Amino acid sequence: MRMLFLGDVMGRPGREIVGARLPGLVASWKLDLVVVNGENAAGGFGITEAIYEDLLAAGADAITLGNHSFDQREALVFIDRAPALVRPLNYPAGTPGRGAALVEAKNGARVLVLNVMGRIFMDPLDDPFAGLDRALDGAMLGEVADAVVIDVHAEASSEKQAVGHYCDGRASLVVGTHTHVPTADHRILTGGTAFLTDAGMCGCYDGVIGMDKEEPLRRFTRKLASGRFEPASGPASLCGVAVETDDRTGLAVKVAPVRLGGSLGEARPAFWEN
Amino acid sequence: MRMLFLGDVMGRPGREIVGARLPGLVASWKLDLVVVNGENAAGGFGITEAIYEDLLAAGADAITLGNHSFDQREALVFIDRAPALVRPLNYPAGTPGRGAALVEAKNGARVLVLNVMGRIFMDPLDDPFAGLDRALDGAMLGEVADAVVIDVHAEASSEKQAVGHYCDGRASLVVGTHTHVPTADHRILTGGTAFLTDAGMCGCYDGVIGMDKEEPLRRFTRKLASGRFEPASGPASLCGVAVETDDRTGLAVKVAPVRLGGSLGEARPAFWEN
Amino acid sequence: MRMLFLGDVMGRPGREIVGARLPGLVASWKLDLVVVNGENAAGGFGITEAIYEDLLAAGADAITLGNHSFDQREALVFIDRAPALVRPLNYPAGTPGRGAALVEAKNGARVLVLNVMGRIFMDPLDDPFAGLDRALDGAMLGEVADAVVIDVHAEASSEKQAVGHYCDGRASLVVGTHTHVPTADHRILTGGTAFLTDAGMCGCYDGVIGMDKEEPLRRFTRKLASGRFEPASGPASLCGVAVETDDRTGLAVKVAPVRLGGSLGEARPAFWEN
Amino acid sequence: MRMLFLGDVMGRPGREIVGARLPGLVASWKLDLVVVNGENAAGGFGITEAIYEDLLAAGADAITLGNHSFDQREALVFIDRAPALVRPLNYPAGTPGRGAALVEAKNGARVLVLNVMGRIFMDPLDDPFAGLDRALDGAMLGEVADAVVIDVHAEASSEKQAVGHYCDGRASLVVGTHTHVPTADHRILTGGTAFLTDAGMCGCYDGVIGMDKEEPLRRFTRKLASGRFEPASGPASLCGVAVETDDRTGLAVKVAPVRLGGSLGEARPAFWEN
Ligand SMILES: [Fe+2]
Ligand SMILES: [Fe+2]
Ligand SMILES: [Fe+2]
Ligand SMILES: [Fe+2]
Ligand SMILES: [Fe+2]
Ligand SMILES: [Fe+2]
Ligand SMILES: [Fe+2]
Ligand SMILES: [Fe+2]
Repeated sequence: MRMLFLGDVMGRPGREIVGARLPGLVASWKLDLVVVNGENAAGGFGITEAIYEDLLAAGADAITLGNHSFDQREALVFIDRAPALVRPLNYPAGTPGRGAALVEAKNGARVLVLNVMGRIFMDPLDDPFAGLDRALDGAMLGEVADAVVIDVHAEASSEKQAVGHYCDGRASLVVGTHTHVPTADHRILTGGTAFLTDAGMCGCYDGVIGMDKEEPLRRFTRKLASGRFEPASGPASLCGVAVETDDRTGLAVKVAPVRLGGSLGEARPAFWEN
Repeated sequence: MRMLFLGDVMGRPGREIVGARLPGLVASWKLDLVVVNGENAAGGFGITEAIYEDLLAAGADAITLGNHSFDQREALVFIDRAPALVRPLNYPAGTPGRGAALVEAKNGARVLVLNVMGRIFMDPLDDPFAGLDRALDGAMLGEVADAVVIDVHAEASSEKQAVGHYCDGRASLVVGTHTHVPTADHRILTGGTAFLTDAGMCGCYDGVIGMDKEEPLRRFTRKLASGRFEPASGPASLCGVAVETDDRTGLAVKVAPVRLGGSLGEARPAFWEN
Repeated sequence: MRMLFLGDVMGRPGREIVGARLPGLVASWKLDLVVVNGENAAGGFGITEAIYEDLLAAGADAITLGNHSFDQREALVFIDRAPALVRPLNYPAGTPGRGAALVEAKNGARVLVLNVMGRIFMDPLDDPFAGLDRALDGAMLGEVADAVVIDVHAEASSEKQAVGHYCDGRASLVVGTHTHVPTADHRILTGGTAFLTDAGMCGCYDGVIGMDKEEPLRRFTRKLASGRFEPASGPASLCGVAVETDDRTGLAVKVAPVRLGGSLGEARPAFWEN
Repeated sequence: MRMLFLGDVMGRPGREIVGARLPGLVASWKLDLVVVNGENAAGGFGITEAIYEDLLAAGADAITLGNHSFDQREALVFIDRAPALVRPLNYPAGTPGRGAALVEAKNGARVLVLNVMGRIFMDPLDDPFAGLDRALDGAMLGEVADAVVIDVHAEASSEKQAVGHYCDGRASLVVGTHTHVPTADHRILTGGTAFLTDAGMCGCYDGVIGMDKEEPLRRFTRKLASGRFEPASGPASLCGVAVETDDRTGLAVKVAPVRLGGSLGEARPAFWEN
């Protein structure tokens, strides 16, 4: 099974490159599953229902979120009628939406998509490790689920790597998001789970984590807010990770970074190109 | 001018791969300058004088540090007789050692090496931006210094990118360290400064930021310490970034990631291979 | 019912003043219940079994803990045979010990003692509010429990006050610990729960939160550790809060601060003196 | 010399009790100097010029600030024509306003008023200790300045106590602000400086740090914002600290807490009442 995960879509530049490139990638790489982190899709802050629909139309099978999940307040409402929208599973009980979704891949496979938030240097949510245990317990990889994708939205590389090892053998892919920078440590862990510390963002890299650099620089140097954060408007890059799984076990057999467009060095999965 | 920067050397596995591979790289890539972050070289915590000498012997021209600078208390003493050892420049006045060193490269060029620490999610040191201004003011790139290398040791990708833009045009290279994961966003900023959010670590990646994974996993899941952190002991990777500068301006003309050995995908600067 | 809560006992000076003064207070104030926070009793870091026994012998009916609960590793073992030792209830499942204890007061009353840790500026444990709900659900004040005492060990005044309001009417007393400074905002909330943001510490106040001031000052000014933290050794103060409850409802009817000895202004519950 | 320091004035309830009570206190206690922290005076967030004038009219001789200094953007402008308005001295160079003001007391004495911000659990500003050294160097107590008042706006009790000891003998009063809870540890340090870890707030205490409790409780329990923070609107308390200095040395000879009105226990300086 062929899956593509794309990191945090950042405002209009991010949405545009996903809209422009994703349909072609689905076709040329014969993708069975696409998961996209959409927590910054609406001007950098949250997601709207219209954007959710657009991302699905472009080829996404599930959308994950993060600390910006509900920056657009409408998400608190429409998430309950958006079965492919997944927010961190370790929000308190009673939070709208779901932290786990069983979606049907383009090839008919059943894929469990999980989103979890780290707690190091972040808002103190419920225990991500215990939450993952509960979510994975009833969904044995290769039996109940043909594939399991875990988006661990976290600041600290240590916490993301710990989640990777913790779920190794129980997921097809554990991929970090939130730092908005793609890491180059894609690999398959000893238990068969593909891992990448951070998928990076889909957005313009000539800024500060996708934001126009002027206001962040002013805040860092003057310690005073003087304006709003706006997504950087230059050429965007699409960033993520490509994984091929064994259909029988659901574990990863190939992993490669994906970086297309903008100012980053291009990366494509050689094993799907010919 | 050809320069190589290597990220945080992590314990014995990190020292061994640097010792084994760096001399050959200096020769085959005809390197003029090598800078290595050594804050974790001594068992993961700080650096000793013997290790400092070993790193120089392996080919390093300067060693930078970070939040673990003085974990080995002897560093508070020997740093004052170690002219190529650079600790963050934004420690308080009176801190042993120096935050800036003008070193002579292998080709005789004068290179200013700076080390600065970020403050987001880290110990509150002095203002890194103001400190960089002071350090760069008297060392105009292309005039006083033939090259300027800045190691920004920081947690947050936003702060590292802000430093990159802030120093763009004033440095040959701004490279982040501390997260122990190589990022894939190497590029040359609009002002001519090569930039990479994090160089990654020289150490074993089958752990948690280079530590054996058992103890970190216990602490994340049980919230209790139950043992010591020990560097992971598997095959190590050497990680960093290669930059070629224009001898006249000191600005970057080429940049490429370097990843050799261990479980990471190999990356070499094509422009130096033949 | 008459209860006294004493804040974090800090090292030997704290233990000595508790040992010297508590027995007399139990007698003269005719105390029915004494709860003492013991997280710093062993040299500032954790508690040993011998100290636990000594505090009980001095008059304590229950001992609460905090972020230093297990600094003395023996506590991980002896806590399971120490029925009056209560650690924060929001540690992960499987943590040794208990977060709630139903103890028998000196007058035979059944008192539920809870310890919970805040998460703002602290280690990310489980949700303290949800944990308190679970602990309080089966222990209706005035029915199952004659009194309920909640020690909320937290840094932020906002979080401690939020716990107070959250449990108002369900507890006899909600009292904060951890900052090592007594606050002067003792009062009875609208639902009948006595509240104090912080009980302060039992220890020497001529230091930095009970530690000898030299090392903390060096760390604040030099940003380097240069020695160990040692409890300040001057005259100690005993600090806490006195509460009288209605025997029928278990709610508070009187509350007053207690400060005896050392460099602080003395405070005694006028309603028990005559 | 008789001085009164009042903690963070919180919105309209805070302004009203200060306006109603301060003029009478100035008269009856024959106050020579009044310093008020005004960082929350405008609806909980910052200060306006009109409020600044009102506080002076009520009897304040200087107004200090904190992390909310510039929440009302007009403060960035009017602070430069407001000589008695003091913002933390460890903002970056170039920040509007001043961190130190030499004001004339009601008795004609010259009083140096300093405001500094802590960095533990707060935004990383410049070194507060080094900044205080610079501010105090030219203003020897008892010579250049008849009195020195330092408002240390900080979260951690450790950092506030460290500032107290650090400035002991160089200031008449070091008083903390920011937690919005009065502490009961008023005392005169060994060098002659009056100290209090936190002055508390002037506002309504039946809330969460002066805010109406509903929204804070929702955020703590649901981890989602669902409305705005509004100052709690019940009866307010006026909180602060009274200090009498030796006119010759400028050091403190008497210190007492002040708490008037609202739900807190009343405290008055007995040495000024008769
Ligand atoms: Fe994001
Ligand atoms: Fe995020
Ligand atoms: Fe490191
Ligand atoms: Fe580091
Ligand atoms: Fe404590
Ligand atoms: Fe504590
Ligand atoms: Fe405040
Ligand atoms: Fe504040």
